[in-house]
Amino acid sequence: MTEREKMLLGENYDPSDDELVRLRLNARLLTETLNQTSVSFSEKRVEIIKSLFGSTGNNIHIESTFNCDYGLNIHVGENFHANFGCVILDVAEVRIGDNCFIGPQVGIYTATHPIDPIQRKSGIESGKPVTIGNNCWIGGHATINPGVTLGENVVVASGAVVTKSFASNLVIGGNPARVLKVIEPS
Amino acid sequence: MTEREKMLLGENYDPSDDELVRLRLNARLLTETLNQTSVSFSEKRVEIIKSLFGSTGNNIHIESTFNCDYGLNIHVGENFHANFGCVILDVAEVRIGDNCFIGPQVGIYTATHPIDPIQRKSGIESGKPVTIGNNCWIGGHATINPGVTLGENVVVASGAVVTKSFASNLVIGGNPARVLKVIEPS
Amino acid sequence: MTEREKMLLGENYDPSDDELVRLRLNARLLTETLNQTSVSFSEKRVEIIKSLFGSTGNNIHIESTFNCDYGLNIHVGENFHANFGCVILDVAEVRIGDNCFIGPQVGIYTATHPIDPIQRKSGIESGKPVTIGNNCWIGGHATINPGVTLGENVVVASGAVVTKSFASNLVIGGNPARVLKVIEPS
Repeated sequence: MTEREKMLLGENYDPSDDELVRLRLNARLLTETLNQTSVSFSEKRVEIIKSLFGSTGNNIHIESTFNCDYGLNIHVGENFHANFGCVILDVAEVRIGDNCFIGPQVGIYTATHPIDPIQRKSGIESGKPVTIGNNCWIGGHATINPGVTLGENVVVASGAVVTKSFASNLVIGGNPARVLKVIEPS
Repeated sequence: MTEREKMLLGENYDPSDDELVRLRLNARLLTETLNQTSVSFSEKRVEIIKSLFGSTGNNIHIESTFNCDYGLNIHVGENFHANFGCVILDVAEVRIGDNCFIGPQVGIYTATHPIDPIQRKSGIESGKPVTIGNNCWIGGHATINPGVTLGENVVVASGAVVTKSFASNLVIGGNPARVLKVIEPS
Repeated sequence: MTEREKMLLGENYDPSDDELVRLRLNARLLTETLNQTSVSFSEKRVEIIKSLFGSTGNNIHIESTFNCDYGLNIHVGENFHANFGCVILDVAEVRIGDNCFIGPQVGIYTATHPIDPIQRKSGIESGKPVTIGNNCWIGGHATINPGVTLGENVVVASGAVVTKSFASNLVIGGNPARVLKVIEPS
């Protein structure tokens, strides 16, 4: 298996692998261009995001500054909005459904390192995918940890640190996040 | 009523309204210019902030990267300092008194979406004003939620998530923020 | 004593002092250059960081946007990595050991203001050093407060707000951070 295949399978991989270095450099050049492209050129911005991400819907809107690791491993649905200063670490897949709003200063992280200091020092790392269902709203300053799955219609309160998965139709918040309210969709 | 008037009154409004789109574009172009203007040109930076915000004192200092929605709905007093990476979502009014310090990576949010997924999907949204009294210090990485009012001399601990209003002369912190200490001003 | 000497000793100092204004301007110009230098020019980026920081190892990697106050008061060991959007406020010394990973959107703050509003309004401030031992991993969105010392091999969970010091071989997390797990290094 290549290091890229190991990475996507959630196994330990070596991020200094040539193919991964090249893919990350490509993503950084695209995000640099995105972040330097004025909102006056919104069609150009959409074009850049579509070439950066693995897949998107037609309607996609991301404010600068936006950063990610590979871009290729990010798949978002129709009507995707992300506000200022978001970071998505996509060493594993990040799959986000339709009609999702990501508030400002949010971090969605799939990247993780060994807890053991000797292993961590070696540079190997691994990823766990993040999956977010349709119609979710991730409030500003929220953190989504590696391996988290959120169902549909979930509202993540601002500043929440989401350390585990949650089902659909919930408002969650706090550090660590817990259920604050059950939503009865109209 | 126009969509802008509804927005400022805290009613549901349509952010795709022509006037609002134009005002947001104007604010983004000004913040792009601000964030690209070197601190070597500090007078130019102050000039940009004064044309971006609804009202300011004479002495105002904001580090890049700074982002906001409209700028026009932000009113700050004399001696205003905001550190690196702050975001103010001003779909409703943000009123900040004199001598206030905003730490780095802070988010002040007035923007909110319906909790109901069907309503949220429609794109309508609403705002609730944020009011911060004189002599407040908002610590780094803090989040101030829509509708919050803070009295005078309030210190918000770093990383706090402020979900409700607090009176004067308090240190608050935690997620959600609660009173940590009462201040006896000298 | 000069204001710079007072600052480094943790005493109250006047940040409007000429020498400090000049040093901060120098650091901001260097960080502006760093943040505008494409990752295509990684050797140039390393050169800038080495002239910005007080001391570094050979292997150092910092993603943009990075911001700090003086840079001169930051000392990092060998194999230092900091991810997107980190802020280090180094009005006091920040000493970080070898093999440390800093996640995205992290804030390491040494700067503090008086709690008393009258004193704070005067503009005086002070700093408390931050020390982080070898082989630590600071998770994304974490906040490290002034005066904190972390031992070796410490893992700070994402979104943690670290308000006090911790010994070696611990996973800490939460707001405020507390011990989540003891690590038995291999």
